[in-house]
Amino acid sequence: MGKTYQSIVVNTPAEAVWEKLRDFHDLSWAPDVITNVDVVGDKAGDQPGARRVLNGAFHETLHALDDDNRELTYSIDEGPSPVSSGEVSSYEGHVRVRPVTEGDGGTFVEWYSQWKGNDESAAEFCHGIYAGLLEQLKKTLEH
Amino acid sequence: MGKTYQSIVVNTPAEAVWEKLRDFHDLSWAPDVITNVDVVGDKAGDQPGARRVLNGAFHETLHALDDDNRELTYSIDEGPSPVSSGEVSSYEGHVRVRPVTEGDGGTFVEWYSQWKGNDESAAEFCHGIYAGLLEQLKKTLEH
Amino acid sequence: MGKTYQSIVVNTPAEAVWEKLRDFHDLSWAPDVITNVDVVGDKAGDQPGARRVLNGAFHETLHALDDDNRELTYSIDEGPSPVSSGEVSSYEGHVRVRPVTEGDGGTFVEWYSQWKGNDESAAEFCHGIYAGLLEQLKKTLEH
Amino acid sequence: MGKTYQSIVVNTPAEAVWEKLRDFHDLSWAPDVITNVDVVGDKAGDQPGARRVLNGAFHETLHALDDDNRELTYSIDEGPSPVSSGEVSSYEGHVRVRPVTEGDGGTFVEWYSQWKGNDESAAEFCHGIYAGLLEQLKKTLEH
Repeated sequence: MGKTYQSIVVNTPAEAVWEKLRDFHDLSWAPDVITNVDVVGDKAGDQPGARRVLNGAFHETLHALDDDNRELTYSIDEGPSPVSSGEVSSYEGHVRVRPVTEGDGGTFVEWYSQWKGNDESAAEFCHGIYAGLLEQLKKTLEH
Repeated sequence: MGKTYQSIVVNTPAEAVWEKLRDFHDLSWAPDVITNVDVVGDKAGDQPGARRVLNGAFHETLHALDDDNRELTYSIDEGPSPVSSGEVSSYEGHVRVRPVTEGDGGTFVEWYSQWKGNDESAAEFCHGIYAGLLEQLKKTLEH
Repeated sequence: MGKTYQSIVVNTPAEAVWEKLRDFHDLSWAPDVITNVDVVGDKAGDQPGARRVLNGAFHETLHALDDDNRELTYSIDEGPSPVSSGEVSSYEGHVRVRPVTEGDGGTFVEWYSQWKGNDESAAEFCHGIYAGLLEQLKKTLEH
Repeated sequence: MGKTYQSIVVNTPAEAVWEKLRDFHDLSWAPDVITNVDVVGDKAGDQPGARRVLNGAFHETLHALDDDNRELTYSIDEGPSPVSSGEVSSYEGHVRVRPVTEGDGGTFVEWYSQWKGNDESAAEFCHGIYAGLLEQLKKTLEH
């Protein structure tokens, strides 16, 4: 099992954060990290089974979407090394959004994943991407 | 909080059970309990936000669908007494499917719910419906 | 179903926050809210089944403790109005601790509950207590 | 990530099944699989942090116990090959008990785990043990 966990607090209401994150086909909030999204197939971006290719390299499928708990799960089916299908399998990525109701308020966002095989280099690689996505989410939503 | 919990074992593989249950717009497997399904709006039956009216009386919305864990969540937004919107609110129904891998095999299916208000009569009413749906699921799939 | 949800960010590592919260018999971190803890029975404070009386009025039992996910669940078995056993039942309180790994760091703490009966006044009452506990946790740990 | 999943239906009420499983220090219900349990340290068998050595070889720690959901989590900290600490790490085992309320009744029991490293041989090895434990649980409780 490889695993990586990242989380951040964003000064934006949870509804607005989830609205950005729940569309699997729209990563326009992360222009510095995701430069291209190709939609594959005809499922909508909030329909499990939806597929996308990010940056021409990451082939991903949406597996679960939960509007009550503001959570989604997806797989990486094929990717560049070290997350190619020859190196890792059963890759599950998770995104979760929770309101911060007291203190300074805002929203707590988690992005974490686990997979089979190639533990260390994939963990470092994925950590970099997800930390980058969360920083960009914060920047996009707060400004 | 009102609550009800029902579960059953069906002698059919989990994939086949989930395939029947995951389409919010198709209850043809329960002809004795659900005589009519009206689809509302244009969302697909596996897309959170999908809406349906059952038996002309239960207005329901799909909130979460998880193909990895074979789980779905929906709400009753309006219904006949004792689950009318004047009597209960925040109604969440859950369906969960798990394989039985050892012993006699088969599939374990849970159907449970919780809501705000009108605890006892709603619990009895919902228990009757969900127990009926699970018995019918078993009958349809096993025969 | 009555429900209440509160959460806060504390500028202290998750391990230190969980260490404070996981002992059901020690609320010395909340001196302004909890002035007295009576331990009932002989179970340790991290052993499900442990019982306590807070401020001479709230009789509570620990039901679950999870050191991996840093979560605990407890019940209120008897309390003052509006959470007396004549007014509410099946009261479940939950505490959850998650690290904030990016941005300004810190720890995200959730305190939420649900119960049967007496929805509105119990919700307002419990919200006040849990918001107070979280604010005090933050104050104690940060200073 | 290595993973293994096993489940069974036992014709005994869920309370009785959980009562057998929740004591980390008592595996007397599995005499053909577990011939020896050494308790390590002074924590009770239902207290997270409790430690045991099974068959002189599996060093395990209880991490979570949930009496409401009838679930527990433990780690293997050291074991024989292929689950030695040189071969696998972050080993989490989970046990979950759910009532079957309709049809023939009984109780659904899941035993599943995940870990880092040594995926295939550890999966086969662990599957054999957990399937054996579940079969023995069924035999002990039903007869």
